[in-house]
Amino acid sequence: MHRETTIEPRQEILRTAARLFQQQGYDATSMNDVAAALRLSKGGLYHHFQSKDEILFHILSHAMDITEERVINVVRKVEGAEQRLRTLIRLHIEVVLSAEDREITVMLHENHPLPPALRRKINARKKDYVHFVENLIADVQRQRSSLSPVTPRAAAFALLGMINWLYQWYKPEGALTGADIVQQFTEIFFRGAAG
Amino acid sequence: MHRETTIEPRQEILRTAARLFQQQGYDATSMNDVAAALRLSKGGLYHHFQSKDEILFHILSHAMDITEERVINVVRKVEGAEQRLRTLIRLHIEVVLSAEDREITVMLHENHPLPPALRRKINARKKDYVHFVENLIADVQRQRSSLSPVTPRAAAFALLGMINWLYQWYKPEGALTGADIVQQFTEIFFRGAAG
Repeated sequence: MHRETTIEPRQEILRTAARLFQQQGYDATSMNDVAAALRLSKGGLYHHFQSKDEILFHILSHAMDITEERVINVVRKVEGAEQRLRTLIRLHIEVVLSAEDREITVMLHENHPLPPALRRKINARKKDYVHFVENLIADVQRQRSSLSPVTPRAAAFALLGMINWLYQWYKPEGALTGADIVQQFTEIFFRGAAG
Repeated sequence: MHRETTIEPRQEILRTAARLFQQQGYDATSMNDVAAALRLSKGGLYHHFQSKDEILFHILSHAMDITEERVINVVRKVEGAEQRLRTLIRLHIEVVLSAEDREITVMLHENHPLPPALRRKINARKKDYVHFVENLIADVQRQRSSLSPVTPRAAAFALLGMINWLYQWYKPEGALTGADIVQQFTEIFFRGAAG
């Protein structure tokens, strides 16, 4: 309980700030705007975050936490390389399509100026994820004795591109449902890179 | 010659503005900044573009012109659906990786606020391109009597995601060359969606 009451307001601040950054632009959004949208005093906001840079960094960290908790940690517990990769594709698509998290996760793909030391921390976590996916693809290719000329690295970038690009075109009311996308993308990727 | 002398300064303005928007953010860049970077008077800049919105719209239009000229128009002249799709994959990757055009084309993927009427014009051109790719994939599947359960629409989005995402990770000095990427992505896509 104690943990929740200290964490929740921070998450609400991050989510509201992410929404404002997307609606009106990162540069055009001031700390005052964020405080006003949350009905917080400026002091109340500064109690949690000292600057917009700090908010942006925590949004990006939170997006990576979400990927870690909902994708990587679940995938690690799955038996068998092929089933692990199938699970990763499904869970990563679900994170990208999640209405609740979209405000946060979309920020990962935007190139807002962040102080270099903070930018490096986020980029290191992104790279770890690429390597995790790459290793998993290599495992699947080995296990299937794949003769595919496709390298795990190019395949990892192709897969992450397919999935992360979803936010550019997916519409919840569109013809392709989330389940369709999981099924079709799994099919394309397994035939394409692991066959 | 006459045509060139009237078009060139506009293109230089667009390229410089796109670079500034990426380096320091769209909102944080003023018309004055753009004029100063070009060593133009403010009047000189306003002679070509009335507002930052107008510059942004023309950057996005120019990015779509590049796609039309260097990808669509070339692909249309190629014989045979399969060869047309292979050519499209290669040329689209080349446009995304082109150092000269990157400043312009990257802007297509960023979500800067544009007046709705202008936004609709750009989105209509993006949609036309998706349909062009989708129809080409359908042609290839038909011609190969493909039994693939992958729909042309999901395949088109997967392909465009793979390619458009390149700008997020490709490094000219990295291990994967442009030619490697063309070869690997063509392989993944043909096995994955048209086999």
